[in-house]
Amino acid sequence: MNKFWSSAVTRTEPYIPGEQMETKDLLKLNTNENPYPPSPKVMEAIQAELNRKLRRYPSPTVDTLREKIATYYQLNADQVFVGNGSDEVLAFSFMAFFEPGKTIRFPNITYSFYPVYAKLFDISYEEVRLNRDFSIAVDKFFHSDGGVIFPNPNAPTSLYLNLTHIIDIIENNPNSVVIIDEAYIDFAKESAVSLVNKYENLLVVQTMSKSRSLAGLRVGYAMGHPMLIEALNRVKNSFNSYTIDRLAIAGAEAAIMDVDYFNEITQNVIRTREWVARDLKKIGFTLLPSDTNFLFIRHYKIEAYEIYALLKEQNILTRHFNKPLIDNYLRITIGTNDDMTVLISKLKSIISVKK
Amino acid sequence: MNKFWSSAVTRTEPYIPGEQMETKDLLKLNTNENPYPPSPKVMEAIQAELNRKLRRYPSPTVDTLREKIATYYQLNADQVFVGNGSDEVLAFSFMAFFEPGKTIRFPNITYSFYPVYAKLFDISYEEVRLNRDFSIAVDKFFHSDGGVIFPNPNAPTSLYLNLTHIIDIIENNPNSVVIIDEAYIDFAKESAVSLVNKYENLLVVQTMSKSRSLAGLRVGYAMGHPMLIEALNRVKNSFNSYTIDRLAIAGAEAAIMDVDYFNEITQNVIRTREWVARDLKKIGFTLLPSDTNFLFIRHYKIEAYEIYALLKEQNILTRHFNKPLIDNYLRITIGTNDDMTVLISKLKSIISVKK
Repeated sequence: MNKFWSSAVTRTEPYIPGEQMETKDLLKLNTNENPYPPSPKVMEAIQAELNRKLRRYPSPTVDTLREKIATYYQLNADQVFVGNGSDEVLAFSFMAFFEPGKTIRFPNITYSFYPVYAKLFDISYEEVRLNRDFSIAVDKFFHSDGGVIFPNPNAPTSLYLNLTHIIDIIENNPNSVVIIDEAYIDFAKESAVSLVNKYENLLVVQTMSKSRSLAGLRVGYAMGHPMLIEALNRVKNSFNSYTIDRLAIAGAEAAIMDVDYFNEITQNVIRTREWVARDLKKIGFTLLPSDTNFLFIRHYKIEAYEIYALLKEQNILTRHFNKPLIDNYLRITIGTNDDMTVLISKLKSIISVKK
Repeated sequence: MNKFWSSAVTRTEPYIPGEQMETKDLLKLNTNENPYPPSPKVMEAIQAELNRKLRRYPSPTVDTLREKIATYYQLNADQVFVGNGSDEVLAFSFMAFFEPGKTIRFPNITYSFYPVYAKLFDISYEEVRLNRDFSIAVDKFFHSDGGVIFPNPNAPTSLYLNLTHIIDIIENNPNSVVIIDEAYIDFAKESAVSLVNKYENLLVVQTMSKSRSLAGLRVGYAMGHPMLIEALNRVKNSFNSYTIDRLAIAGAEAAIMDVDYFNEITQNVIRTREWVARDLKKIGFTLLPSDTNFLFIRHYKIEAYEIYALLKEQNILTRHFNKPLIDNYLRITIGTNDDMTVLISKLKSIISVKK
């Protein structure tokens, strides 16, 4: 604390991102990045944009990228907002749709950035307890005073909630906005984007950081009714006119258009996830059924933190959350088949030593 | 308005950036971009970073870039904050140092984003009238309840305020933060960065968009006491962990290190500014003495808006502000010598037709 800090700074409890070590030979399975590189077409598009025009501001309205995203999801461009990663889109959404004095709801086990935003913007919140099986307690989200936000699939549980339940939550919150944070949806089943034309209180947020291998480029987007998109634009244009640079715009456009590459690497990740899940079960791990690019696992005889520490000693980074209810779980990102073969073999030796 | 909008959205009056037309053969002198391309070393650095690592998140702490900026300004890295353009840095600063209920002060003629931020964050403000010669009325900024912000040189007036006056303002606001927005400082005289080690209530904000030809890359930074920088980090880490992408980090590092190229193009812009100023005076324009990469001019017989419109018809874009006191001025960015030769010749013919 310091006499020059605003009350906003003083009340913050900043988010702590996963470790971003750049050590060589590190197997980095802690921040759910895609193990495959971006599409070659992304590289070409950025290359083509790497010229003297960098001296010029990018488009403040990001029209061409919004149009391409809209086309992909069969929406209109005025139903799409683009931001600097889905984290920025979520921050703008908290400002645009949630109100100090009106309590919002999100699950007690979820993306740990939500309470961080809430503190910064002075929004009160209720952490709704998950069911015993870690699934979302759907009816506890009905009639929220201030709005609802949760990821689907949820993180770090990896569990997908069916659209019928999402519809129930949307229909039972007619006076507030329901934000579905679909960072991992491409590894799961149907997206709630299909509901955007029907429900004016639904905002669906996605990112290019996971399924499109572009965590390093910072592009996320929101889809919803044009009036919700206008609210996000008003906030953005009161904050920073240009949040996505020229190279990122070019790369993101190529990424959304290269559907074949996207399908191929997404299917690869899902196939790897399935065999890894089977192998982990064989060596005594319990897993929640994952619809994401990570697994949320625990072992019947070794503490999760101990596994985390032993793996880290051997240059394998996973993510452990020191939080009630989930402190005996590890979140492990799906890597390539080779990555996961190494992981399984290390886990086997950790377990055998323990016996 | 819409029932789903927060009170923050409802009270916003978004900033309107200068037109970003991409028409061919357009002479774009409206948003103070540098007429010279970024350093060739910037291009090389981005090229080297354009690889499969784009799938990985960038550094959330941007350590290497902060260290390079610190070295250039003879500071420590903990005195430097980096953001997505100086607009984002300013937005975070409003959140970090200004408080709803405490009135801040900025000039009545200044960067038009300040009142926009203030409305978004619900900060009350007093617009302090400039002196008759458009200079800043220094003593009217003393003992501000909530803090002070202004650009030096000021925009769109182009006038530089000497550091002795800046020191007066800092020393007469011991309990609040004074933000000096130095977007154009490299075209002027001494930066207030030299005061950062002495005054704990001073924050100096700069950008790579103007003097380093990187408007398209979105990198800005703030320099101040480590406690001020910590406040900015707390806000940023409650908002978006990674606001600068891998390619922008690489480009910005190369830009700050290529001092020779920077000096060369900066001197070119200043030299062009001086002859253009002389030529404009010869054809009847009045100019404020510019310490920036733009000129703020008016003509004794033709309305500024008319000149703006006639230039636009001929594919030359300048900026006109439809605001009291300055609505008869045009803001014209300094281009290359060739650009400005074209401009002067068009202005001559506009004036001769009018006679």
